Amino acid sequence: MSSSPNQLDKKSEAWSALFSEPMSDLVKRYTSSVFFDKRLWQADIAGSLAHAEMLAAQNIIAAQDHADIQRGLAQISADIESGNFEWKLDLEDVHLNIEARLTQLVGDAGKRLHTGRSRNDQVATDVRLWLRGEMDLINGLLTDLQLALVSIAEKNVDVVMPGFTHLQVAQPVSFGHHMLAYVEMFARDAERMLDVRKRVNRLPLGSAALAGTSYPLDRERVAKTLGMEGVCQNSLDAVSDRDFAIEFTAAASIAMVHISRLSEELVLWISQSFGFIDIADRFCTGSSIMPQKKNPDVPELARGKTGRVVGHLMGLITLMKGQPLAYNKDNQEDKEPLFDTVDTLKDTLRIFAEMVGGITVKPEAMERAALRGYATATDLADYMVKKGLPFRDAHEAVAHAVKAAISHNVDLSELPLSVLQQFNPKIEKDVYDVLSLRGSMNARNTLGGTAPAQVSAQIARHRARLA
Amino acid sequence: MSSSPNQLDKKSEAWSALFSEPMSDLVKRYTSSVFFDKRLWQADIAGSLAHAEMLAAQNIIAAQDHADIQRGLAQISADIESGNFEWKLDLEDVHLNIEARLTQLVGDAGKRLHTGRSRNDQVATDVRLWLRGEMDLINGLLTDLQLALVSIAEKNVDVVMPGFTHLQVAQPVSFGHHMLAYVEMFARDAERMLDVRKRVNRLPLGSAALAGTSYPLDRERVAKTLGMEGVCQNSLDAVSDRDFAIEFTAAASIAMVHISRLSEELVLWISQSFGFIDIADRFCTGSSIMPQKKNPDVPELARGKTGRVVGHLMGLITLMKGQPLAYNKDNQEDKEPLFDTVDTLKDTLRIFAEMVGGITVKPEAMERAALRGYATATDLADYMVKKGLPFRDAHEAVAHAVKAAISHNVDLSELPLSVLQQFNPKIEKDVYDVLSLRGSMNARNTLGGTAPAQVSAQIARHRARLA
Amino acid sequence: MSSSPNQLDKKSEAWSALFSEPMSDLVKRYTSSVFFDKRLWQADIAGSLAHAEMLAAQNIIAAQDHADIQRGLAQISADIESGNFEWKLDLEDVHLNIEARLTQLVGDAGKRLHTGRSRNDQVATDVRLWLRGEMDLINGLLTDLQLALVSIAEKNVDVVMPGFTHLQVAQPVSFGHHMLAYVEMFARDAERMLDVRKRVNRLPLGSAALAGTSYPLDRERVAKTLGMEGVCQNSLDAVSDRDFAIEFTAAASIAMVHISRLSEELVLWISQSFGFIDIADRFCTGSSIMPQKKNPDVPELARGKTGRVVGHLMGLITLMKGQPLAYNKDNQEDKEPLFDTVDTLKDTLRIFAEMVGGITVKPEAMERAALRGYATATDLADYMVKKGLPFRDAHEAVAHAVKAAISHNVDLSELPLSVLQQFNPKIEKDVYDVLSLRGSMNARNTLGGTAPAQVSAQIARHRARLA
Amino acid sequence: MSSSPNQLDKKSEAWSALFSEPMSDLVKRYTSSVFFDKRLWQADIAGSLAHAEMLAAQNIIAAQDHADIQRGLAQISADIESGNFEWKLDLEDVHLNIEARLTQLVGDAGKRLHTGRSRNDQVATDVRLWLRGEMDLINGLLTDLQLALVSIAEKNVDVVMPGFTHLQVAQPVSFGHHMLAYVEMFARDAERMLDVRKRVNRLPLGSAALAGTSYPLDRERVAKTLGMEGVCQNSLDAVSDRDFAIEFTAAASIAMVHISRLSEELVLWISQSFGFIDIADRFCTGSSIMPQKKNPDVPELARGKTGRVVGHLMGLITLMKGQPLAYNKDNQEDKEPLFDTVDTLKDTLRIFAEMVGGITVKPEAMERAALRGYATATDLADYMVKKGLPFRDAHEAVAHAVKAAISHNVDLSELPLSVLQQFNPKIEKDVYDVLSLRGSMNARNTLGGTAPAQVSAQIARHRARLA
Repeated sequence: MSSSPNQLDKKSEAWSALFSEPMSDLVKRYTSSVFFDKRLWQADIAGSLAHAEMLAAQNIIAAQDHADIQRGLAQISADIESGNFEWKLDLEDVHLNIEARLTQLVGDAGKRLHTGRSRNDQVATDVRLWLRGEMDLINGLLTDLQLALVSIAEKNVDVVMPGFTHLQVAQPVSFGHHMLAYVEMFARDAERMLDVRKRVNRLPLGSAALAGTSYPLDRERVAKTLGMEGVCQNSLDAVSDRDFAIEFTAAASIAMVHISRLSEELVLWISQSFGFIDIADRFCTGSSIMPQKKNPDVPELARGKTGRVVGHLMGLITLMKGQPLAYNKDNQEDKEPLFDTVDTLKDTLRIFAEMVGGITVKPEAMERAALRGYATATDLADYMVKKGLPFRDAHEAVAHAVKAAISHNVDLSELPLSVLQQFNPKIEKDVYDVLSLRGSMNARNTLGGTAPAQVSAQIARHRARLA
Repeated sequence: MSSSPNQLDKKSEAWSALFSEPMSDLVKRYTSSVFFDKRLWQADIAGSLAHAEMLAAQNIIAAQDHADIQRGLAQISADIESGNFEWKLDLEDVHLNIEARLTQLVGDAGKRLHTGRSRNDQVATDVRLWLRGEMDLINGLLTDLQLALVSIAEKNVDVVMPGFTHLQVAQPVSFGHHMLAYVEMFARDAERMLDVRKRVNRLPLGSAALAGTSYPLDRERVAKTLGMEGVCQNSLDAVSDRDFAIEFTAAASIAMVHISRLSEELVLWISQSFGFIDIADRFCTGSSIMPQKKNPDVPELARGKTGRVVGHLMGLITLMKGQPLAYNKDNQEDKEPLFDTVDTLKDTLRIFAEMVGGITVKPEAMERAALRGYATATDLADYMVKKGLPFRDAHEAVAHAVKAAISHNVDLSELPLSVLQQFNPKIEKDVYDVLSLRGSMNARNTLGGTAPAQVSAQIARHRARLA
Repeated sequence: MSSSPNQLDKKSEAWSALFSEPMSDLVKRYTSSVFFDKRLWQADIAGSLAHAEMLAAQNIIAAQDHADIQRGLAQISADIESGNFEWKLDLEDVHLNIEARLTQLVGDAGKRLHTGRSRNDQVATDVRLWLRGEMDLINGLLTDLQLALVSIAEKNVDVVMPGFTHLQVAQPVSFGHHMLAYVEMFARDAERMLDVRKRVNRLPLGSAALAGTSYPLDRERVAKTLGMEGVCQNSLDAVSDRDFAIEFTAAASIAMVHISRLSEELVLWISQSFGFIDIADRFCTGSSIMPQKKNPDVPELARGKTGRVVGHLMGLITLMKGQPLAYNKDNQEDKEPLFDTVDTLKDTLRIFAEMVGGITVKPEAMERAALRGYATATDLADYMVKKGLPFRDAHEAVAHAVKAAISHNVDLSELPLSVLQQFNPKIEKDVYDVLSLRGSMNARNTLGGTAPAQVSAQIARHRARLA
Repeated sequence: MSSSPNQLDKKSEAWSALFSEPMSDLVKRYTSSVFFDKRLWQADIAGSLAHAEMLAAQNIIAAQDHADIQRGLAQISADIESGNFEWKLDLEDVHLNIEARLTQLVGDAGKRLHTGRSRNDQVATDVRLWLRGEMDLINGLLTDLQLALVSIAEKNVDVVMPGFTHLQVAQPVSFGHHMLAYVEMFARDAERMLDVRKRVNRLPLGSAALAGTSYPLDRERVAKTLGMEGVCQNSLDAVSDRDFAIEFTAAASIAMVHISRLSEELVLWISQSFGFIDIADRFCTGSSIMPQKKNPDVPELARGKTGRVVGHLMGLITLMKGQPLAYNKDNQEDKEPLFDTVDTLKDTLRIFAEMVGGITVKPEAMERAALRGYATATDLADYMVKKGLPFRDAHEAVAHAVKAAISHNVDLSELPLSVLQQFNPKIEKDVYDVLSLRGSMNARNTLGGTAPAQVSAQIARHRARLA
């Protein structure tokens, strides 16, 4: 046990002997991070355990010190988990809170834990460890959401809806195909997360304050203990690098942009004018004044939360811009945006995976809408091309045909053959096969196309990939 | 007292009779805002009181209902203030929490309060009322900070420091003058806040859900009761407009940019290489590893917090982009960024006003630095112009003189007259008057210039303005 | 005429005698701004004329010099306008290009123009003068757009459309009322621009490089000549302040957010599923592949351009964050985002004012849509309140009525009286008056409401305001 | 040769037979992209050649058509390169300009080129091809910059400078080590670019407008011809996905943040107060008013350009947020920010690689600065730890020693042994070895540390990696 007093116990009086006065209360509140960074506690303890194990293996601390540190940190873990740990504002952050308590519990061994490290490399390590874990959870949620989308796609391979460009009816597509477009997006998000993870999963610890340390640390050993892929190779960079936080938040922003696009479509489709789908009541709210209302709150709110995550990305970039090396206090501001980004993305992915399962599809409404807009005009042009007309001429001939159909207020498929032949004499009776919604959809049977055969093949590919 | 059950008491079961299932717990947590919007409670109650008063005056509710509402809201106020109010997640937000409790307390009168209003206009009103109050506090803090800067300027009117452009020594300036540059910035911030305030301080209430209401409301009366400058003139706009939040956050971002610039300079000046100032220990922290460190945490952290506020601005703009009319749930996401912007700006201004008072100026270091960089070269050029040389020729002659001084490793003022005359024969002994730091500083005696006389005049102007 | 060579003529060799080598070509291209800042030429010449006039009035330059400068600048103006001015990369920017040419034309007088000023205060002045002019044009365009919206509102006061919240049918509103919501937004934009203009329209000139000048300038005189409202009171602030650029871009971003909201609605309304309006063919494009397509390119592109302007805002803030005083070269990056913001906003406002005039309204489609969604449910609740039911109880009773109507697949107005009376026995035959779309719309007859009488009153107000 | 007129020749009259009026001139200018997207011409032609080759191989077009297309595109290539191609606003974009000209040159074959594709998949393909090429150039420039940094590091391995945290002197570090911190950053940038490249290098072509096509395309063949790694698997996603643009711009933003940090340091180091380095005159400019000035324009401007790129990132995200599937015209706004990001990043990397080679290091100034700030205090603490003191106790003892040194105005290494022993009796004469700058630097000899041996090892690693 310790025989000398613990410097950290006096922190409310002064930072160290060099300071002539304590921090003002206002400053304490302004600069303390403990009330948000305490969520790093597990990473902090894991990092300290790995550090202590290495210090002992390298004979920098004694085996007994190591054992004391293990014992003390185990108790702290238990206390935090059971809610019996007292977090102190005076001790600034999660790191000093845990270290101070450790020294109370195990004396001098606690004071030896910080040998060869600094808060600068410690906090960088903690955030990376924590983020790595969260990213793994996020990728699990991305898988869940993809699976939910694949399931609804599978049930609706043959449902025809109007495909839109410019929100104008363009060509008939399979609703399953449409759902799979989002699977592609979320699959890319997952891929991106894995790329980012490589750069998150590197070890700053051992860089100390900024220059490395004079103790014979074995940084590779610590990296291995912590399951990290490598060691940051330059101490100045290691303590000041926040690329990984920006990069993760950029990836999260893109994922939220995908969510916002899906949300926009859900909101449109639930609207009475589209009426393509319903979502289960448990995802809706009512109005305080309009008794008939059932509002798609979840997709709207998710669309709104995109701004929140994008804002965090901008905040983090602004934070790092123009900072000289090495660590500056500005960097403390990396945490709250990062934490909130993780929370928002996880909550949103989780709720979307559930909500997608609560969608009811209304095939008749979709089909009805697909019939408003001459969605098979391209098929008529393609038909003419197959009869020998150059594509550009066919395109123009069909424009005339559509004009005629509009003036008679009928669909292309309702124009008599004789009328169609006015636009191209080679048109024959079989033209009506390509002018139906289903005929059109089935015809788009190349890789990536909307024909049900293609959609089913994609579903099989996704199922295999996500298994 | 109420004879029928309160619809809001069953909210945990279903939103209204139209809903076949309750909201899922996940959705509740995702969509509820009560745990952050409860800070609007005072504005909510103020708005309800003004609304009820008008309903009674217009005979839409009975005098007894009005009295009951007043009594109930008074009790709720007291309960919230004393921490005895139970906030319920099931009741979504501050508005339904208060209304539900009111009905528990006073029965049917409580159920009548929502007559002619909707949460859409209610929340817009509450946020505006709350923000107006916070903006008034912010302008008070901006005044405090300006006064602190004026005070330190006043004490240092005659202190010469190197004025920089491109961080290169440019011309000698008064430290007081330099401090007043920031007073200008914060004065503009205050002016901007007042401009924004006009648009914040307009009343949406009475717009109901989106279309107005069929009750004979007197909206002007409510506006007057609440001290608002006008009534929002279009109900659709009133419930969906969040310009005021964006506009305020933009003004706050600019203020934080000013803070970041001052912070950057403080950090530079405290560095050993500059050594221009010290700040009191109570605004500094030490290092967990380097025992000699005293770090300027407050300005660094403030510089970092600029990113946070800018991020909120971007988040709010992204939020509103492309939203169709009228209210959409996305808008709920306006609150947290707005709240955090207000908190960050207030905390930062408060701590800066204090910290500026804790600055110790080191005039010798500033003067020494001003002597490194030929800061009076422009004065030599101006001297030659006054002797008849065109400015551009004088500029070039002085470049040669500086070159000579560099090669002899002396200041311009240390070159012998004979050498100076090589660059222009009209130079006479009085040239040495303009080549001194103080001579140079005193010479810049036009409006806005750095001459002490000008600086003192500005100080007097600011004192009068801020009184 | 000049007898000595012009320093600026040798700029391709070296900046001044102090420089041992010329700028590298790569650096020249990287740092030169002349190919974008030459658009400031009119402001630059206006500023120089005002400066020269004051120099002469203060006897700092001779009357003959003043006359020469006026003559030279007049010629340069003519040359630039006629396309006969040779802009040189070596001369970096618009300012040095004009000054160098002036000296070629009028000799020493040209070299005297720069007396008592620096590029730092010159460029700040030029940008402000230029921006002031552009803002006045922008406010003119905002007026045009408001008038176009008022006109279409006026023609459609009585057209009923479904008002939406959460994109769900909420209550019937007047299409004119809906258009006027945007008039409110653009009116706020104009108001904001005027607020910003006050801070744009202040004079930095006379601040010289950073510290003021030793010449007896009369800055108030220059401000008056240039029509500016005041003089920047601190030279350090004057040369480094870019608040006005950020503030303008923030105001422009908000205007673009309004444009994006209107665009979103136009795109929705033109879609076949809504079918509320058409826009004239001249605002549409076709598809390279789908012959039937007519796409609303203009609103889509405008919605997209919102991102561009918001990006510029972010860029400008990032630019200024953390800059020490006074002028730094970073600031040169203020121009391109500012120029592009002005261009984008002007082009967009102009095209929208035209396009709004090209809208064809389809009242039947709107009315049909308003009938899908129980839009008069609130009216039924209000009816019950007027019969004495507390609002909350009425709200719940109507939820049951809507449920019944849904189950019978009829509108509320199609439920027999006996059925309606099950939900509240006090309901009488007159209930059907409030259950019609028009009855509902007409009932919302308070200030800001959607009743045609209110809409017409607003139109009159706007007409008067915009006259 | 063509026997029928070319539809595209009439585009100035109307888009197609469906359009009753031509696009207004204002709209043409607003929506046309040809004046910025023409830079995609090489990618457009490469894509068309690969598409035509496949169409012929699949017997969708005749061999003669293929040959005609090849001949026509070869001529167009030559014309564009020689500046003899007339770009027409009426033809909207690079794609229609080239196709229209092709048809003029080779008749019907030209009209057949667009078979089975749409502008939607064509533009997505072109942008990806173009960006892939630019990214390869960028990675080359990142290598150049890293090599320049490694070279200067190599020459300065043994130069001691003060390492800073919070811009306060922290511990002595090798200037070479400091330079290598930036090598780490730019190495990560290159790594990130390669990750992004995978997702850029996928083929949308064959997705047609949105749904795939009815022609038997061989998309894998086209991907192989174009050197792409895969085929976009969902047509709706393929034509509307802009993730790759956002992702690239995010990576570019991080690279610019690194540039901004290096710039900040260069500006500081060149300042007279630091005086650590000089940069060659060819990277500097002078002042229009202050004859003595030599300003570090390049790093300042680069720091400023960070805002520009970050702004583009924000713009692109805002652009995509909330867009429904599939292609919308908003997406046209992806190009200018992307183009400018590429240009800015390339120019900046190129000039930095050159400028780093133009740095002159001033070792004495660095060493002098390292002596101001008790930079070896940590070494004293470590020394005590090695004598058995727990780290926390050693930290506190050294704080007292520093206090004593400050009060005597001497460095720690100048305190007599007897005084040092007051803080810890175990201190012996060998303490002075660790109290020297070089002793301290050499001691930090673990992986990633600043000891010259470590720095040299890193240099060797980088040389091998970059070879």
